[in-house]
Amino acid sequence: MVLKLYDYWRSSASYRLRIALEMKGVAYESIEVDLHPDVRAHQSDAYRRLNPQMRVPAIEVDGEVIGQSMAIMEWIDETWPEPSLFPADSVARLKARAFANTIACDVHPLNNPSVLKILKDDFGANKAALSGWYADWITRGFAALEAQTPALETPFLFGDEPTIAEICLVPQVYNARRFEVDLSEFPRLVTVDAACQNHAAFQAASPEAVKPA
Amino acid sequence: MVLKLYDYWRSSASYRLRIALEMKGVAYESIEVDLHPDVRAHQSDAYRRLNPQMRVPAIEVDGEVIGQSMAIMEWIDETWPEPSLFPADSVARLKARAFANTIACDVHPLNNPSVLKILKDDFGANKAALSGWYADWITRGFAALEAQTPALETPFLFGDEPTIAEICLVPQVYNARRFEVDLSEFPRLVTVDAACQNHAAFQAASPEAVKPA
Repeated sequence: MVLKLYDYWRSSASYRLRIALEMKGVAYESIEVDLHPDVRAHQSDAYRRLNPQMRVPAIEVDGEVIGQSMAIMEWIDETWPEPSLFPADSVARLKARAFANTIACDVHPLNNPSVLKILKDDFGANKAALSGWYADWITRGFAALEAQTPALETPFLFGDEPTIAEICLVPQVYNARRFEVDLSEFPRLVTVDAACQNHAAFQAASPEAVKPA
Repeated sequence: MVLKLYDYWRSSASYRLRIALEMKGVAYESIEVDLHPDVRAHQSDAYRRLNPQMRVPAIEVDGEVIGQSMAIMEWIDETWPEPSLFPADSVARLKARAFANTIACDVHPLNNPSVLKILKDDFGANKAALSGWYADWITRGFAALEAQTPALETPFLFGDEPTIAEICLVPQVYNARRFEVDLSEFPRLVTVDAACQNHAAFQAASPEAVKPA
């Protein structure tokens, strides 16, 4: 049975799972949940019944829809172990997960459209204030990650192949560029992103590659 | 060698790791990083050098300090496998991680003190607005979790023992109560929290149990 992925081309958490599935060579059916502000399909009653969290991505397993990209990533790796999304060494695996979670827990949640909407509607944030907020969380997170990233001796952060760290980094860099966040202070992160742009799985999973016509 | 945990009694992400370590019966040395607004030890130069993310919890492994509670939780489980912090069944494991990540990614990051400070300083949020924001993210997250939680047939969410799901739930319920968030709509979550309050690991790890004299 083909895996069903509730997906949106521009959702960076969905983008993570598309990369993971492409790295594994796992075929999946993408079911579009249109997050565009004029559509908000994730807030429809139909989608709420499927996924009370009203977010993407989500997958269907045993007839149930389950969300949370980082949990799904672990399940993907357990279900299709090769190639692993994690370094082989225990401490490297800890570092890769910590790198990924700095993005998934400390950056991405703050810049979710639902947060920006509340800032605008309830806190009177104008466009400049929203851009400042958006850039600030990326800059804080990336500054910590850049400081923790050693000079690269391999093409990717943890060796010759990308791991969960790059799977979370690349969609966040995509968001940063989309919102014109200055990345000049993060040369190592930019170098890793560039290496990923030449990797077939990252290419096939990119927003531009999967954007509906 | 005893594991060093950079810890703060009231940090709910630190509380998660204390529970995990108590469940495993792993002795650890708690190194206090005082997050109190009058102290802000996490923002000191000394701590920044150790952990550029300037957050707790963090652990010291092989002479390096590494943060991110959810990454550390996976490392703890890999390093001391028994008793597991995860359900044995693959789909249950996915659900437990998804439950935990709903808190770790969708609730907790929005209510971090660093976020509240920006809302106050840069967006002019008064006390009522901050309380509303705080309660709103907990309520959204808990509403989704309550809707996804079946009628309990076991003492805990995934069987006879707590898992990563309860390890994330209980500290978030603690925060909710501390900020007087109404939990009356979440009877299943409250029942699970009550079961955990009778569990020795949760008791030993609680803020009150570890609060400095």
